[in-house]
Amino acid sequence: MSLSDLTSLPGVTATPDIPTRRYVFNHTMIRVRDLTASLDFYTRVLGFTPVYQHIFEEAAFTIVYLVLVGDRSVIPDDDEARKRWVLGQPGVLELTHNHGTETLEKTPYHNGNTEPRGFGHLCVSVPDVGAACARFESLGVTFQKRLSEGCMSHIAFIRDPDDYWIEILQPTPLPAG
Amino acid sequence: MSLSDLTSLPGVTATPDIPTRRYVFNHTMIRVRDLTASLDFYTRVLGFTPVYQHIFEEAAFTIVYLVLVGDRSVIPDDDEARKRWVLGQPGVLELTHNHGTETLEKTPYHNGNTEPRGFGHLCVSVPDVGAACARFESLGVTFQKRLSEGCMSHIAFIRDPDDYWIEILQPTPLPAG
Repeated sequence: MSLSDLTSLPGVTATPDIPTRRYVFNHTMIRVRDLTASLDFYTRVLGFTPVYQHIFEEAAFTIVYLVLVGDRSVIPDDDEARKRWVLGQPGVLELTHNHGTETLEKTPYHNGNTEPRGFGHLCVSVPDVGAACARFESLGVTFQKRLSEGCMSHIAFIRDPDDYWIEILQPTPLPAG
Repeated sequence: MSLSDLTSLPGVTATPDIPTRRYVFNHTMIRVRDLTASLDFYTRVLGFTPVYQHIFEEAAFTIVYLVLVGDRSVIPDDDEARKRWVLGQPGVLELTHNHGTETLEKTPYHNGNTEPRGFGHLCVSVPDVGAACARFESLGVTFQKRLSEGCMSHIAFIRDPDDYWIEILQPTPLPAG
């Protein structure tokens, strides 16, 4: 479907309002049971870098913003500059940790893929989905769907420590198998 | 907190594994009741552009990828090139429409902010949060939290047609009020 067909779909405003031109789809927030376990997963398995943390003592929760950048030299060193920078970036992950949930045996959070459904998944795209999945296997990552499972052999889903689903795909077509 | 303090937080892998350097946090997927209503909201209110649609006839669902780019000239015109491009971008929104839900009177989907909680919100950052909120008011957008409500006067939350929450903030500090 061509871009002009897409911008003619029912409901679509073909020419966005000028003030929206500087809007940025900045982040997605998920709640996590154990911040240490989630920081381990998102930094070790997926390569995210935490760039901002705020502890709300009175309301008893902590937020951490993470970015997935190949080259950390793009991240400002100055704390205030880095906060402004991250709030203007697309593709930021916000983890919210309500203090005390880490003592629960299992996550109190719902991944949205059983009733009641809603949110579905995050997706990390990788240059080589086969190599990425082999790496995840070697790291002992939990899979929701391996490449070989189901009818879509070009995508996989892994699970984070709270069982949120993370789709893994590569932008380029896979060689015919 | 400095960047080196952040990368020393418990659980954090200080130096990401080399294969992750080309990983991209590509998209967030949410299910929507009425695709036309959601495309209207995300394109008219927030300025997103739909760049890819796939209809899964047999499984009876449709997915649409949307990006929020100020300058559409960055979007490849060729269909195959555009698909590869969008799967390599950060900050993409995937809407999933299960065919038939548009006939339901209200959304069957859960926004994650009442029990069972999990996913919290999306966030769109804007150059001027006051101006953006005034614009949303003039468009009749539903607010979850106006700037003047609650104790955080620098952020607002609006609601999309399925009641998913969208945080609105500006990267720079607001003038003292």
